[in-house]
Amino acid sequence: MSKNAHFIDHFLSHREVTKELISKIDSEHYSFKPTPTSMEAEKLVNHILESMYSFARFANKQQPEKLFGEGDTSDLVKRADVYTEETVKLISSLSDEDFEQMIDVSQIFGKEVSAGQLLTIAVEHEIHHKGNLFVYVREMGHTELPLYIKS
Amino acid sequence: MSKNAHFIDHFLSHREVTKELISKIDSEHYSFKPTPTSMEAEKLVNHILESMYSFARFANKQQPEKLFGEGDTSDLVKRADVYTEETVKLISSLSDEDFEQMIDVSQIFGKEVSAGQLLTIAVEHEIHHKGNLFVYVREMGHTELPLYIKS
Repeated sequence: MSKNAHFIDHFLSHREVTKELISKIDSEHYSFKPTPTSMEAEKLVNHILESMYSFARFANKQQPEKLFGEGDTSDLVKRADVYTEETVKLISSLSDEDFEQMIDVSQIFGKEVSAGQLLTIAVEHEIHHKGNLFVYVREMGHTELPLYIKS
Repeated sequence: MSKNAHFIDHFLSHREVTKELISKIDSEHYSFKPTPTSMEAEKLVNHILESMYSFARFANKQQPEKLFGEGDTSDLVKRADVYTEETVKLISSLSDEDFEQMIDVSQIFGKEVSAGQLLTIAVEHEIHHKGNLFVYVREMGHTELPLYIKS
């Protein structure tokens, strides 16, 4: 199996869970936050989606960009669908050799890492914030939650 | 760098953060849970520590065991220190070839995976629950929290 196909499988095993959690967030809970200093639910979800997409762009030697403008009113389920599709497209375009290419992310991490390492960091970042989101969604009243990874 | 040294670095970049969060949990908060159906803080921490140790034992073709008995009153910081030390010892004993060895975890995952793949699953499992723990610790009143990974 090529590295990009393998990575996409792994990414989606977590992203499908992220999307399932997002589907449980009603719009009246978009501004929910568990404590005054916590990130709001909507902001947390956008951070997850935008970060992974940015990491995938960096891995393709492209600068980050957002897929929805400031005033856009698309709901989080729609955003998750679009970001997931565009992220998969970016990863699909990477060859096995591209995974070994060094990417200059020294402004963020203080060092260069390979595209493959960067994508590993990206998935771990999503798992971390998905772990936050599990607690948020339970606090919104949901008790039937998925496992943290989809097999 | 050998695979075990590389993996230990990666594991500790997350475990050090887990330990920092644990150090913020006062004993009166051990039974804290954000919702009635959530895991209690103490149980969540023990689950993180015991799971990673069990995965490391599986990777060494050993069955899981607990390092503290049922009635043991050691606090969570002490438990984290002991589990971390014993987990590192187990991983240190794996050769590069051992990382490729297939491990029969079909009772848990429905399939065999290599020791290296199992350890990747183990770290992702810790990142997920550490992500839960961040929200717990913030709800206990802490606002100065570490980054999710230590560089």
